Amino acid sequence: MSAMPNPPLSINPPRLNQNLAALGRIGEVAGGGMMRVAFSAADIAGRNFAAGLMQNAGLTVRTDAAGNVIGRKDGTEPALPAIALGSHTDTVPNGGKYDGALGVIAAISVAQTLAESRHPLRHPLEIIIFTNEEGTGFHRWLLGSRAMAGLLEPADYTTLDDAGVSLAERLAAVGGDLSRIATARRQPGELAAYFELHIEQGPTLHRSGIPIGIVSGITGRAVLTASVIGKANHAGTTPMSERQDALAAAAQLTLAVQNIAARAEICRVATVGRLQVSPNAVNVVPGAVTMGLEFRDLYPNALTAAETTLRRQAMEIAAAAGVEITVELLETTPPVPLPTALQELIATAADHCQLAPITLPSGAGHDAQAIAAIAPAGMIFVPSVNGISHAPQEYTSPPDCANGAQTLLTLLLLADERL
Amino acid sequence: MSAMPNPPLSINPPRLNQNLAALGRIGEVAGGGMMRVAFSAADIAGRNFAAGLMQNAGLTVRTDAAGNVIGRKDGTEPALPAIALGSHTDTVPNGGKYDGALGVIAAISVAQTLAESRHPLRHPLEIIIFTNEEGTGFHRWLLGSRAMAGLLEPADYTTLDDAGVSLAERLAAVGGDLSRIATARRQPGELAAYFELHIEQGPTLHRSGIPIGIVSGITGRAVLTASVIGKANHAGTTPMSERQDALAAAAQLTLAVQNIAARAEICRVATVGRLQVSPNAVNVVPGAVTMGLEFRDLYPNALTAAETTLRRQAMEIAAAAGVEITVELLETTPPVPLPTALQELIATAADHCQLAPITLPSGAGHDAQAIAAIAPAGMIFVPSVNGISHAPQEYTSPPDCANGAQTLLTLLLLADERL
Repeated sequence: MSAMPNPPLSINPPRLNQNLAALGRIGEVAGGGMMRVAFSAADIAGRNFAAGLMQNAGLTVRTDAAGNVIGRKDGTEPALPAIALGSHTDTVPNGGKYDGALGVIAAISVAQTLAESRHPLRHPLEIIIFTNEEGTGFHRWLLGSRAMAGLLEPADYTTLDDAGVSLAERLAAVGGDLSRIATARRQPGELAAYFELHIEQGPTLHRSGIPIGIVSGITGRAVLTASVIGKANHAGTTPMSERQDALAAAAQLTLAVQNIAARAEICRVATVGRLQVSPNAVNVVPGAVTMGLEFRDLYPNALTAAETTLRRQAMEIAAAAGVEITVELLETTPPVPLPTALQELIATAADHCQLAPITLPSGAGHDAQAIAAIAPAGMIFVPSVNGISHAPQEYTSPPDCANGAQTLLTLLLLADERL
Repeated sequence: MSAMPNPPLSINPPRLNQNLAALGRIGEVAGGGMMRVAFSAADIAGRNFAAGLMQNAGLTVRTDAAGNVIGRKDGTEPALPAIALGSHTDTVPNGGKYDGALGVIAAISVAQTLAESRHPLRHPLEIIIFTNEEGTGFHRWLLGSRAMAGLLEPADYTTLDDAGVSLAERLAAVGGDLSRIATARRQPGELAAYFELHIEQGPTLHRSGIPIGIVSGITGRAVLTASVIGKANHAGTTPMSERQDALAAAAQLTLAVQNIAARAEICRVATVGRLQVSPNAVNVVPGAVTMGLEFRDLYPNALTAAETTLRRQAMEIAAAAGVEITVELLETTPPVPLPTALQELIATAADHCQLAPITLPSGAGHDAQAIAAIAPAGMIFVPSVNGISHAPQEYTSPPDCANGAQTLLTLLLLADERL
């Protein structure tokens, strides 16, 4: 069993941030936003850039049938399963330079340090760049990681992208092969662990000045619609007492949704993001409103309780306002708790690095939540300035990026020693 | 001075309702709605149908330069100004069979009765069908009555309709002449009075079982926009305490607007009819909302007080929600109170007909509000079943139509005697 190196290994912070900046120029558009959307020329260029860095760090790089780029270096004990580090290099349209990119470049910085220090790992090391994490074009996200975890759904195969192009054609362009995509699947036990460093994309670490977040899990999400049917009527001639105003009822329901998280704290966050009024004319009492809303929490019970509360309040509001409200659950993404043992290992790694972490759930989705189905998965967060993400203003300071990479390196060494 | 006839004159209820039904077949579409929009072939056919009835009742019919159809019969005292009865025969798209049409056909029934009974009036009698009361196509309403009252605005001359056709061309098709439209103007004193029978278009008379409404005035209207600027953010990663949710603030403001009329009773009615959310995606905390709202009341002070209350509450909501709210007054239509003396004359007429009336303001606009600028104007309302108007379901029972026409006849006779 290899011991933790003494003196401790260190990633190279200037190189980390230079490579991150270099990747951030691939697909950069005016205003600083990133257009490295999956399967685009910029996406392919970004993957090739990262693959080149991996090869220079001594990894053998292949592309699986799902288009995932996988760099691998064998360990000293051939019987052990690999430990994987990964994230993605695709971006949302006009997105930022850190979401996904940091996890990939940091993993590479870890491999570079290991190569340069000639520090052997017991386990094989894999660095994985997952295909179309953001789901851009097809509106079906985590494509590569779900393929690896055996979580693809029938619609993944048949949905055309916004340009009308099939997944088969898109995958072929990045070296994948839809007809063989089942071969991208990894079995439980093939990976000893999966670790992902990512920007928080929320304000918690930045606001509190904490450099490292230990992700307790990826929050689940319940998406619902509420359809409010009142009666469209003349805004001049209909007395207030005679109205069945769908928008007034929808306004009450909007505040009820907000309060389910904000005041009652039944779930972590609750959002009415979409609201459409009919007929939507200033001189007509609104006759109908449709609302799109969601709840997120780390616990399925909280999602259920939020939905139950919503349904009860919708009934009360409907009765008082003389309207009908129909609530429909559209989809549920179950929460993915991450193993406590790996959370503790991340805490130990942060401690080694003299960084005091906090534990927090992830409000956004990540490749780790798919890979968690086949391997123990751990996630490290670093601060997002002002919590901004998916926007050109997305920013994580160079020291924070370095802290994350150093924690990832230490975590890998600890896991290699203990798993 | 002529005395009220004894036995009293009566309109012919079956003929009234037959002519109303006949007009209701001109431009009727599947489902029973009316497509007699201004300047359409159906509109022209409707005007011709009514003009023919006027001629048969002994009126001399002309079309003024604003396209208003005017039937006239001289009185016994050549020096007296005319008493006018009128309304419109155009409809909104897929509108009803009573809005406007009842006022015209009832006025004709009055003229028919006078002709058949050979009852002479002291004053000349005019029956006026006003052009494009609804404003369809050009989105500029009360065209004919505003032309007659000298209330046209520059945009009336230049605005093209939804089909890109000029008013000059549209007017020519109905016998008007935009280049001579100033000649349609009548001077104060040219009309001794103007009376309009109309359906209420609201539920007050129908709900209370009252057959006749005396209109105290046409409510004024203040149209405002409220623009709420928050911050669009990730619905999963942004804690409730960090949000600047534009929709949650807009929901509070919507309820505040409703309560300005419903609870505080600062003005008669208050409506948020239009609301647009940006980016309007279920997984994004709304960053911006624009709202279109209006207040209506018979008193200008009430409109001002409502606006002041709105602005104060918008400031409070904005401060609490961490958003910016900008309130802008887009347009104000001043209330038009109708003369008390004529309201009393309508009450006397209803009393003659053994119909117990109530007095109420009109929440909708009417040609009478324009003509009120040049002549004393009075309006009679009859019940709208369930308050429905501008829809195929618009309905006023035959007895209610007859009651309205009989009250109009009696009012004319009283006015002819007393004015």
